[in-house]
Amino acid sequence: MALYIPKAQILLPRMPHLASSTAAAAQTRQDSRTAAQTRQDSRTLGFLRRSLLLNPLYHSNPLRMAAAIVPGDSAKSAGVVRSSLIEPDGGELVELVVQPEERAAKRAEAAALPAVRIGRVDLEWVHVVAEGWASPLRGFMREDEYLQCLHFNSIRMADGSIVNMSLPIVLAIDDYTKEAIGVSPDVALVGPNGDFVAILRSIEIYKHNKEERIARTWGTTAPGLPYVEEVIRPSGNWLVGGDLEVLEPIKYYDGLDHYRLSPRELRKEFDSREADAVFAFQLRNPVHNGHALLMNDTRRRLLEMGYKNPILLLHPLGGFTKADDVPLDVRMEQHSKVLEDGVLDPATTIVAIFPSPMHYAGPTEVQWHAKARINAGANFYIVGRDPAGMTHPIEKRDLYDPDHGKKVLSMAPGLEKLNILPFRVAAYDTSVNKMAFFDPSRAKEFIFISGTKMRAYARNGERPPDGFMCPSGWEVLVNYYKGLQAEETGQQSAALSV
Amino acid sequence: MALYIPKAQILLPRMPHLASSTAAAAQTRQDSRTAAQTRQDSRTLGFLRRSLLLNPLYHSNPLRMAAAIVPGDSAKSAGVVRSSLIEPDGGELVELVVQPEERAAKRAEAAALPAVRIGRVDLEWVHVVAEGWASPLRGFMREDEYLQCLHFNSIRMADGSIVNMSLPIVLAIDDYTKEAIGVSPDVALVGPNGDFVAILRSIEIYKHNKEERIARTWGTTAPGLPYVEEVIRPSGNWLVGGDLEVLEPIKYYDGLDHYRLSPRELRKEFDSREADAVFAFQLRNPVHNGHALLMNDTRRRLLEMGYKNPILLLHPLGGFTKADDVPLDVRMEQHSKVLEDGVLDPATTIVAIFPSPMHYAGPTEVQWHAKARINAGANFYIVGRDPAGMTHPIEKRDLYDPDHGKKVLSMAPGLEKLNILPFRVAAYDTSVNKMAFFDPSRAKEFIFISGTKMRAYARNGERPPDGFMCPSGWEVLVNYYKGLQAEETGQQSAALSV
Repeated sequence: MALYIPKAQILLPRMPHLASSTAAAAQTRQDSRTAAQTRQDSRTLGFLRRSLLLNPLYHSNPLRMAAAIVPGDSAKSAGVVRSSLIEPDGGELVELVVQPEERAAKRAEAAALPAVRIGRVDLEWVHVVAEGWASPLRGFMREDEYLQCLHFNSIRMADGSIVNMSLPIVLAIDDYTKEAIGVSPDVALVGPNGDFVAILRSIEIYKHNKEERIARTWGTTAPGLPYVEEVIRPSGNWLVGGDLEVLEPIKYYDGLDHYRLSPRELRKEFDSREADAVFAFQLRNPVHNGHALLMNDTRRRLLEMGYKNPILLLHPLGGFTKADDVPLDVRMEQHSKVLEDGVLDPATTIVAIFPSPMHYAGPTEVQWHAKARINAGANFYIVGRDPAGMTHPIEKRDLYDPDHGKKVLSMAPGLEKLNILPFRVAAYDTSVNKMAFFDPSRAKEFIFISGTKMRAYARNGERPPDGFMCPSGWEVLVNYYKGLQAEETGQQSAALSV
Repeated sequence: MALYIPKAQILLPRMPHLASSTAAAAQTRQDSRTAAQTRQDSRTLGFLRRSLLLNPLYHSNPLRMAAAIVPGDSAKSAGVVRSSLIEPDGGELVELVVQPEERAAKRAEAAALPAVRIGRVDLEWVHVVAEGWASPLRGFMREDEYLQCLHFNSIRMADGSIVNMSLPIVLAIDDYTKEAIGVSPDVALVGPNGDFVAILRSIEIYKHNKEERIARTWGTTAPGLPYVEEVIRPSGNWLVGGDLEVLEPIKYYDGLDHYRLSPRELRKEFDSREADAVFAFQLRNPVHNGHALLMNDTRRRLLEMGYKNPILLLHPLGGFTKADDVPLDVRMEQHSKVLEDGVLDPATTIVAIFPSPMHYAGPTEVQWHAKARINAGANFYIVGRDPAGMTHPIEKRDLYDPDHGKKVLSMAPGLEKLNILPFRVAAYDTSVNKMAFFDPSRAKEFIFISGTKMRAYARNGERPPDGFMCPSGWEVLVNYYKGLQAEETGQQSAALSV
């Protein structure tokens, strides 16, 4: 049974001051395109980076720790019936990993099928679909699903109901692979390491019109979109859809797999904590005290609305990101410091990794980010200014209108059951030396510290104003950038000495 | 009450041979981009063209003639209750022309409002919206409607129901006009002739991101799309949405206004004929005997299904078209010959002009073409191969996959109540010397005569095979192209003599 909260019951203040913060926020985008060429380098820095970090990674899942802290709360003691979570899209959570006892037989079958080699991002999508983040999708999209996704950002089910589906989840193959598949109804997917990953059944092969896919997904075909240049343009001219049977759970062995909780695991955790509201916060940046203020304030509001036990899902995106985003391992380290420091309450927070790749497709992508969290049990979704946005790759402006993400999300088909919580703008309040909700009546007392400015501080070893971020979290960023610079300097020296 | 026919009841044959005709049909596109530069010229040819035509325009509306012919049919004599037509989208037909007795006051009010000058295509959209083709839309889109249209090809109504809306119906203004409007809640729209056309009320001005609009509507941003180059790119950087009050019915005084029946007039006509099924055929080309075969065959099938009085709405598009399409007046003349000749039955056919401009936006636009016909009372819609498609403006291929229009239409939100009838491919059957449904088992006996080939025949004064088109209809085309060539030759001589 779904926990359905009509939107009308949620009275959040309008934010007329959002507009006034536009200029400041636009500033944050100015240099987000730097260092594309350092992408490859930064990817190889993992080992060095880790060895430079003073603090160890937060290896025990905060879930485990937090679970011990959760007390029997007032709802429980008052004898309230345990709440049920929001229904997954399509009514049932899709799970596509075969049972352990079937693995050997499936692996043998896979070995006899035409093989399709998949890349790292394809593997991330297999992961996403296998665990049901895209429920009710059961594999890579066939053409009917793809067309509905491109044109309607939603898919109609057999019973006439509509589910949201805004990003094409597709698998591209080249001409050679298409030839090799021939008329086989099933194929084996072979991962980047050469392992059999999955069987794709009852396949359908159809044309991959990249221009149309890009135009309809991003609203531009300008060169320089990270996912387009790195994933779509180099890919094949055909798409292959079908039903996935995944041979075993997808793991990355990067020291972070314990953070990768599936929708089922998350739902179980929410249930075990007797959550009566779950609010999700999608992010791909370090958490500063402004974010924390927002999340803590949201919890306060949910309590005011009458919820007894709202749980925060702090849910960093873990798949493909662009070169100048802070890498996942550094972000996870930073997030754990924020929890250790008590800026966020571990007793009411779950930190987990959302395994999806990032498209940077603004209003189209934010629907995916929200929809996937429904499947993980979240019935509240916090949406910020310009979610999943970025600078236009070739023009001096934001790619998307900063308000469109929020607007499109609030009107998106299939997301009616999700409660959208608009982001309140926080900034550094110099009158109290801490992050606070921006008050336009005393605008001059606030300093906006953008992600870009934050990275510049960290890169230059400067301290941000006291109260911007917990010191241990800040330390993580400073060390990361120190490591990056040491690596770059080392490479330059090496280049000079060759 | 809507006449609702569940799709499952309609058993139309699948068309595996569609694929085999792809190559032939692709050929038809090869030179559709010629003569863009002659567009302006061809527009000024109206007078010359008419004077060259041997046959007069079909000035009496075929409706009137046909209405007299309709006999009391079998359904009537059997005492069957008169059928009601499919409901307009939103439940009620929108009509926005003010009552005659209010005109003077509204005109006086308009004169005191900030003026927005609109172009010919804008006027066509005012016409479209004013008569309810876009019901339940009541004016130019505000941002919420625009965003839903771009992202979802549909709009959610206040009661939660969904209506299809795939093309942005928007009014662009420039910076200067935006300044001039200031904070006025209402503006007056001034037509190309300087007349007050309408008042736009409770306006909302928002950014016109042309790149995003083009990418999401066409699935490409390549230069050379006719509507983009002629309408969107030269337009202003702002869109103004609001509710329309149109001062009087839109007329063009081109000798064709009597063909421009509004949805209300069409519905009245269908009711007066006691239609129990209305099947619409959208076209922007001359009607050949293959089209006629299809339409007559569709009627036969509807009769077989049990309908007693199916009426054909032969519904040529009358707004903006690209330069090398056959002009509206010539097409109307040709269509009337087809009816006079008895190729189509005047007693069961209504010919009227659909006043919409053409986008050539393939799968996105075909939804608009179908949706508008629901509002006019059609519950069956014939969809062809590659509807509203064209050649890619800069690549040697069709812009859209020829099957996508049909597929997208069949899955489009808000069109569930419409019965989609896929187009059967007709070609010239040399074994019987007439147009017939293509039979792949004897493919060699068929000749495909594309629109391009047809125009080439007519331009060169060649005769197409007997039975391709009724002779009087063919004569209309030949005379049109003769006139065009005479005009071009005249212009060349004039240029030489200057």
